[in-house]
Amino acid sequence: MAVKTAELYVEKPVQDLYILNITPQVKKHIKTSRIRNGIATVFIGCSTASITTMNHNEENVKSMKAALEHLAPSDYDYEHHKTCGDIYGVGGDNNGKSHIRSSILGPSVTVPLRNGKLLLDKGQDIVFMDFDIIRRKRKVIVQIVGE
Amino acid sequence: MAVKTAELYVEKPVQDLYILNITPQVKKHIKTSRIRNGIATVFIGCSTASITTMNHNEENVKSMKAALEHLAPSDYDYEHHKTCGDIYGVGGDNNGKSHIRSSILGPSVTVPLRNGKLLLDKGQDIVFMDFDIIRRKRKVIVQIVGE
Amino acid sequence: MAVKTAELYVEKPVQDLYILNITPQVKKHIKTSRIRNGIATVFIGCSTASITTMNHNEENVKSMKAALEHLAPSDYDYEHHKTCGDIYGVGGDNNGKSHIRSSILGPSVTVPLRNGKLLLDKGQDIVFMDFDIIRRKRKVIVQIVGE
Repeated sequence: MAVKTAELYVEKPVQDLYILNITPQVKKHIKTSRIRNGIATVFIGCSTASITTMNHNEENVKSMKAALEHLAPSDYDYEHHKTCGDIYGVGGDNNGKSHIRSSILGPSVTVPLRNGKLLLDKGQDIVFMDFDIIRRKRKVIVQIVGE
Repeated sequence: MAVKTAELYVEKPVQDLYILNITPQVKKHIKTSRIRNGIATVFIGCSTASITTMNHNEENVKSMKAALEHLAPSDYDYEHHKTCGDIYGVGGDNNGKSHIRSSILGPSVTVPLRNGKLLLDKGQDIVFMDFDIIRRKRKVIVQIVGE
Repeated sequence: MAVKTAELYVEKPVQDLYILNITPQVKKHIKTSRIRNGIATVFIGCSTASITTMNHNEENVKSMKAALEHLAPSDYDYEHHKTCGDIYGVGGDNNGKSHIRSSILGPSVTVPLRNGKLLLDKGQDIVFMDFDIIRRKRKVIVQIVGE
């Protein structure tokens, strides 16, 4: 049994919702770890982004954008906006919706690994969702516990 | 320490939301694994279903149906419907809502195991939720990492 | 490799949504476990509460309260209310919303541990959310699998 913890870096290039398929990078780390059976945890250490799974394609990303707008709307007057203000001068802390979306979708996903392969369906991708409203660089953790 | 990975099969008999209590099957796999302390991951490899916990009874299933309709409505004009079309001739890809619900609720749940028992409350069940709109057969993964 | 499972107790003092930052207690258990690398699972064994992460401060708690009211409103006529009734004489089972919120946010969060530290961001806290509508005492499980 071993524990292998690696990092991968993602960059949010847009000032809006960003959904990235990170399955290829996660798979690369799993190959490097040489662990063949166990649990893979993909985790984002921040409070305005999430990790989940989806069938990542252009249409589903558009549908998800509308769904997240319904879940935690951009134009709601979040308490967060009143006290945190615009500390970066770029609208950085008018991101009340980003905090809500992150807590509801959660910071991590766990995927079983068997015989060196993640047990994802072929139409199922591990995605990084960044809900913040400014450009960000993020560090995603991939940890494998197994043998 | 050991890793045990098993499969269980579930069938969605209805052309609508299906919520099944899979706790008995999960417990059976745990008993077979002979692992007594560790982490149990229950995972569904698909992008239109989820695994979570709930107090599974008729009333809560009805409430959940209404809540999911509120979260990602059936009658919304998802982008997904425009390009994917009805490829199966059975309404199979008019399932934009199914993809959204699956990403928000997530594909897996992790439950600690101690002295051979899942640390679930007596009114807390592990449930498989299938959001798709056609009949499906699904494979659920139960993985235990422990000793 | 080892498995360490500990309990921490939380008390919901209010008859309404309660969100508590439990990061300090989780960190204490991790220190006691002497495990330095592995996966930490924080799990709540009940069907009307959840564990997730958030930047825990007064404003975000207020925003979350509004968001959860939008996700599963208090004033909806849940099926659960019709059959379960008010068994405690304190409105105890008029908690249809609590069950819904718990299933959507989920019972657990998994956080990677490296060199003895949880890989949380400094503005990211592990939170216990109790959605029930009566005062409750709850047991939260902290399990660490690693070396």
